[in-house]
Amino acid sequence: MKQLEEGTELQLDFGKLAKVARNCPEVLPVAVQNADTREVILVAYANGQALRRAIETRTAVFWSTSRNELWEKGKTSGEEFDLLEVRVNCEQNSLLYIVRPRRGGICHTKNREGRPRNCYYRRVDFETGQLENLDP
Amino acid sequence: MKQLEEGTELQLDFGKLAKVARNCPEVLPVAVQNADTREVILVAYANGQALRRAIETRTAVFWSTSRNELWEKGKTSGEEFDLLEVRVNCEQNSLLYIVRPRRGGICHTKNREGRPRNCYYRRVDFETGQLENLDP
Repeated sequence: MKQLEEGTELQLDFGKLAKVARNCPEVLPVAVQNADTREVILVAYANGQALRRAIETRTAVFWSTSRNELWEKGKTSGEEFDLLEVRVNCEQNSLLYIVRPRRGGICHTKNREGRPRNCYYRRVDFETGQLENLDP
Repeated sequence: MKQLEEGTELQLDFGKLAKVARNCPEVLPVAVQNADTREVILVAYANGQALRRAIETRTAVFWSTSRNELWEKGKTSGEEFDLLEVRVNCEQNSLLYIVRPRRGGICHTKNREGRPRNCYYRRVDFETGQLENLDP
């Protein structure tokens, strides 16, 4: 079991953004929302190429900041997401993808039933500071 | 009129993230969702201090990456947001704040009626690539 992904301890990775900026200086954060359940399911990154490809294919396409390459969501896992809308914020420095899953969750982690989750499956308990898993 | 904020031209600021990482290397992106309408209203940033203060005060507190200081949302504008939940993603490198406005929108921009908007008020037209304002 990976403590970081499955554990109850809050151990935020405050070094991630600096790594992202070093490896992929031209990406923007993208919040991803399920059009039907309205759940926020992921925050990922996109550059111009990823956004163009997303609009072209009408699917959720990102820029993988770990592999530094185009990330066509679901190409290998099968969990593809139709892209319904792209929204832009006031200052044009972030995006919102409104998507519809063709199959399941967007996360690489799985719940006990073996189904892919969505990424925000843990909540911070305000009293204890521990994480509570809402989709164990 | 500020074209960047009010215009129909998509001119994404791909330099923002590198600037953020340079000025504030220890922040994480935070997606912010209205608990009632389920609208995604902002993507901002937080560090440990901002998150602690948010939980302590049960309000939306961020780290201002332009001023490099604590940003207690609404302290000056009056648009405060109660913090209902904090969610953490799989890899613990981003957050989701689920909030409830005490008054109005979260954006510094205003619509024609003079009311603060929420930040994702423009949609990319997939055919033309232009922006359509949903809250002019």
